[in-house]
Amino acid sequence: MYRFKIFVTLKKGVLDPQGQAVKKSLQALGYQEVQEVKVGKYMEVDLEAESVDVARERVKHMCDKLLANPVIEEYRIEQAEFEPVEG
Amino acid sequence: MYRFKIFVTLKKGVLDPQGQAVKKSLQALGYQEVQEVKVGKYMEVDLEAESVDVARERVKHMCDKLLANPVIEEYRIEQAEFEPVEG
Repeated sequence: MYRFKIFVTLKKGVLDPQGQAVKKSLQALGYQEVQEVKVGKYMEVDLEAESVDVARERVKHMCDKLLANPVIEEYRIEQAEFEPVEG
Repeated sequence: MYRFKIFVTLKKGVLDPQGQAVKKSLQALGYQEVQEVKVGKYMEVDLEAESVDVARERVKHMCDKLLANPVIEEYRIEQAEFEPVEG
């Protein structure tokens, strides 16, 4: 079993209204030193595969097809230590 | 200027309906090898501070007060290379 971490962020130049909202909220709470906030998605996917290379390819496909919007988002994939999920 | 990356994930044992929905969608798209999906938030915060230690403390406070819900979520903070935001 393999685990991959996926980070999805908006491409440079794409408006980030969620990040702007978080920035304003932080400043309103007294964190005036905050200059910029960007908000993205973080996902962990556990999957079976013959090898880590096959697993990585499959995860890339998943990102292209479902997990990220290639028009406005970019993603980064990182292999992680697999630990069984509890609960 | 300092930049921190923040990863917010659900605590172990907390139900993750968004992750379940993504898992079902992936399986419906033909990725039957997917066993588990967890969905979290990823944020980047740029801030001014006297030192990196002060900056890290402030970011921790922001997480406790606004960015994460300590009842059901946990977070991890990582310093990143600061690059000016374009666009």
